[in-house]
Amino acid sequence: MKRANVNRIITVTANPAIDMTYAVQGITEGASHRVPTPLSRAGGKGINVARVTHQLGYPVLAIAPTGGAAGQTLAAELWTSGVPHTLVGVAAETRRSIALVDTVAGETSIFNEEGQALLPDDWRSLRIAVVEAVSGNRNLPASVLVGSGSLPPGAPADFYPELVRLAHDAGIPAIIDTSGPGIIAAAKAGADILKPNHHELAEATGESSLEAAALALIDMGARTVLVSAGADGMLAFDHAAPGGYWSARLPEALSGNPTGAGDAGVAAAAVALAEGITEPREILRRATAWSAAAVLMPAAGEISPRYQELQDQLIVTWKETR
Amino acid sequence: MKRANVNRIITVTANPAIDMTYAVQGITEGASHRVPTPLSRAGGKGINVARVTHQLGYPVLAIAPTGGAAGQTLAAELWTSGVPHTLVGVAAETRRSIALVDTVAGETSIFNEEGQALLPDDWRSLRIAVVEAVSGNRNLPASVLVGSGSLPPGAPADFYPELVRLAHDAGIPAIIDTSGPGIIAAAKAGADILKPNHHELAEATGESSLEAAALALIDMGARTVLVSAGADGMLAFDHAAPGGYWSARLPEALSGNPTGAGDAGVAAAAVALAEGITEPREILRRATAWSAAAVLMPAAGEISPRYQELQDQLIVTWKETR
Repeated sequence: MKRANVNRIITVTANPAIDMTYAVQGITEGASHRVPTPLSRAGGKGINVARVTHQLGYPVLAIAPTGGAAGQTLAAELWTSGVPHTLVGVAAETRRSIALVDTVAGETSIFNEEGQALLPDDWRSLRIAVVEAVSGNRNLPASVLVGSGSLPPGAPADFYPELVRLAHDAGIPAIIDTSGPGIIAAAKAGADILKPNHHELAEATGESSLEAAALALIDMGARTVLVSAGADGMLAFDHAAPGGYWSARLPEALSGNPTGAGDAGVAAAAVALAEGITEPREILRRATAWSAAAVLMPAAGEISPRYQELQDQLIVTWKETR
Repeated sequence: MKRANVNRIITVTANPAIDMTYAVQGITEGASHRVPTPLSRAGGKGINVARVTHQLGYPVLAIAPTGGAAGQTLAAELWTSGVPHTLVGVAAETRRSIALVDTVAGETSIFNEEGQALLPDDWRSLRIAVVEAVSGNRNLPASVLVGSGSLPPGAPADFYPELVRLAHDAGIPAIIDTSGPGIIAAAKAGADILKPNHHELAEATGESSLEAAALALIDMGARTVLVSAGADGMLAFDHAAPGGYWSARLPEALSGNPTGAGDAGVAAAAVALAEGITEPREILRRATAWSAAAVLMPAAGEISPRYQELQDQLIVTWKETR
């Protein structure tokens, strides 16, 4: 079900990972456990965004640096999944993320490797891959640039602002989903959509009030800020409507696996922009529904086919701030 | 410091692993943790035996089946370490063993993948590699065959007895260090040395008394049984001295990392046999000292240069059983 009327969505994941998920029948700290072979998948937030976008039939290209044996595994898994990709070969071994699912306690403990530093030439190669993809050509024009996730140690401080500039130079919008100082830098560069969760938003801005924090990012230059707030759903702040914000939530919270829910929301926002939708209320509705549909799936990078039904159930309200 | 007067020791590891060790600053179940790049090493008990043997300058060959990206990592790490090896390429991906070292609680939690089944042709290829190695030739004669560790799912029930037969056909002794029914099968096949720990011994024989269990293995056909008993040191039972056993221990237990201590003991026993030593008391002294010296090292497959000094401190006693 290719949606041929939509141009290609480009996702950039500077710090991808192999996600290894182990099912453990009861974890005892300090003990030795016998576990079955893990589920290994290409991961990292931008790759999850590309996976959801691809699952729903929209054209996408996932760009990431990869290296070492784990990088080979990542490449092989992307081929198997059918997600179109441009991988920039680097010397640093691709990191892993280990999830231990305690099948007795029903809890998941996650161990994310920080990732290894890339060389200056690696960053240049990654930038060239992005420029080529967003510039497009008559056959493969790009519609949206998505930059997602943490950065490896030693990343250029202007990595996310530079992505925003490259997108705007190519005449397409940029969505940035990261944490820490990258959020501020991307806002100042005029990112079209930022999607922090409420914890990341508070940490990056130093504001204890969620509203004040989101409005600060708008004041810095962001056009729209989507804030995911866990079971409370999602909020949308927009530069064109500074007097309040939209809130969307389901009548009842869903239980399931929240890993990758934010990435599904970013995929929804990217697809909306690719379809020419700029209305923050509509972007919020789709992002909230796709996020909720991701919670229903066992693995990150997938959403339940119930996303449309969930979207119809949403309670969307406008709240005044001043 | 190659010991050219000793013939090559052959170790067989049917279920090798990549050992990945993560340092975690406090583990909270159900939480997300950021961790540095792990230490990745070729592992599995027979590979640890080969590593210690190689470290001390004795000629060795590590034989193992390897496959997939983890198998490539294992091969690369063995090359880097300089441990001579014959790897049999198989379709099944080599398993991993994840160790989470909680640097706050001072506890290590281990998650051992069970491993994937090998194909019948893989088992034949592995057997051919063993036959070639133990047959040797004028330039590379073999001295001892060591079979160590668990077996992957679906392994032939006679894998360890067959190793013993292949060794004896080639005129060299066999040391088997495994758990479960493999211990019984290897005893019945006339293994020259078995090295269970006290837990494995009780589980395999169903005998609650350590002495009765070890003597049962001797009655079945094993020549010498070395039993590691943790901080209580090690015991040696021998077919030629059925009235008792030798016990060796340090005056005070050492604290450190016991992972791989048993493998260092097996390496000591293999080197002793390779040097023509058959006296169980002397084999026990060396195995106990090398085991203790392994506890002093942070990683499996290494022993402290203090092994000679530790050997001189051992308290070795003869105990009558009947």
